[in-house]
Amino acid sequence: MKKGLLVVVSGPAGSGKGTVNGMLLESEDYVYSVSATTRAPRPGEVDGVNYHFISKEEFLRRIDAGEMLEYTQYCGNYYGTPLKEALEVLESGRNLLLEIEVEGALNVKKLYPEAVLIMLLPPSFAIQEERLRGRATETEEKILERLERTKEELLTLPSYDYVVYNHDGAADRCADQIRAIVLAEKSAVSRHPAAAVQYFEN
Amino acid sequence: MKKGLLVVVSGPAGSGKGTVNGMLLESEDYVYSVSATTRAPRPGEVDGVNYHFISKEEFLRRIDAGEMLEYTQYCGNYYGTPLKEALEVLESGRNLLLEIEVEGALNVKKLYPEAVLIMLLPPSFAIQEERLRGRATETEEKILERLERTKEELLTLPSYDYVVYNHDGAADRCADQIRAIVLAEKSAVSRHPAAAVQYFEN
Repeated sequence: MKKGLLVVVSGPAGSGKGTVNGMLLESEDYVYSVSATTRAPRPGEVDGVNYHFISKEEFLRRIDAGEMLEYTQYCGNYYGTPLKEALEVLESGRNLLLEIEVEGALNVKKLYPEAVLIMLLPPSFAIQEERLRGRATETEEKILERLERTKEELLTLPSYDYVVYNHDGAADRCADQIRAIVLAEKSAVSRHPAAAVQYFEN
Repeated sequence: MKKGLLVVVSGPAGSGKGTVNGMLLESEDYVYSVSATTRAPRPGEVDGVNYHFISKEEFLRRIDAGEMLEYTQYCGNYYGTPLKEALEVLESGRNLLLEIEVEGALNVKKLYPEAVLIMLLPPSFAIQEERLRGRATETEEKILERLERTKEELLTLPSYDYVVYNHDGAADRCADQIRAIVLAEKSAVSRHPAAAVQYFEN
């Protein structure tokens, strides 16, 4: 059984990363891991299925102990990916898909350098703006905030491995492109340092 | 129009590289370039179509002038890929496929570092030996020579970018894998140093 790949997909608002990742998750080769959180379970949520519900003290202890692959704070609660959970998925041969912000992505790469970082982008900033305004569900202030945030996000692009452009109605092509990236990465000689020796032993 | 990729496929005898490359060439995205040679044209061969037929003096001059991307000597004649020819193909947006020996491949990478080197391998040395004996068209001496040569070839694997295993009857899967590698390489951030700037300008 070959190890799975840790695939991080980031993208600014309007990049369509939710749609693209949803398509990848339709196959059994790609999975999300169960996140840990300090927020209280909502009615119907099951511990270990929807989230691992843990205390803030336990969450902070895990951060200190290097047991969180990545984490973020939102509305006073912590959310993150337990390293153990992530490694179990990878050992099972499935690819672990993480849809996270750029800061988290760079942390993942530091803790787990074999991770592949993919930035999903609209075809251009102008088209991104059109998309955000087209939604018509957000205030002008929120739209401007997201566009401003995009400039910071793009500054981290050189730390990413791949860039994928999501043209209108082309989410399926983006998913294909990400699958191609994963297949290529698994074929990289750098990931098979013993390939030549094994060739003669098998 | 985006530039094409220079794709070098090498593989030991019995790896099936001819079959796999033939599949890639069925699409217009992949082309062989017209080689230069010092051997005399055979009846029906057309200069500039089958080969560029040139004199030995001219061939040696081109090597000295750095005008050959790669070359080899066989039965007293020179064969090689003119750099100008190769660059024209790449500028046209098509991918240039070179099926060459490991020494030539390493030279290509030196002259043109953007080249992608792919090693096609049988699943194992044992299976390679089976395949070569199964052909029953070669002398025992020739078979042993090819197997011995494989050991030298595998020593260069760390200089290759990707390794693709050709299982029995899986040439089409190898062609798919090479297409995935090419798509991934074209998505590499390192090949788009101005991507972030262009995102805001387009």
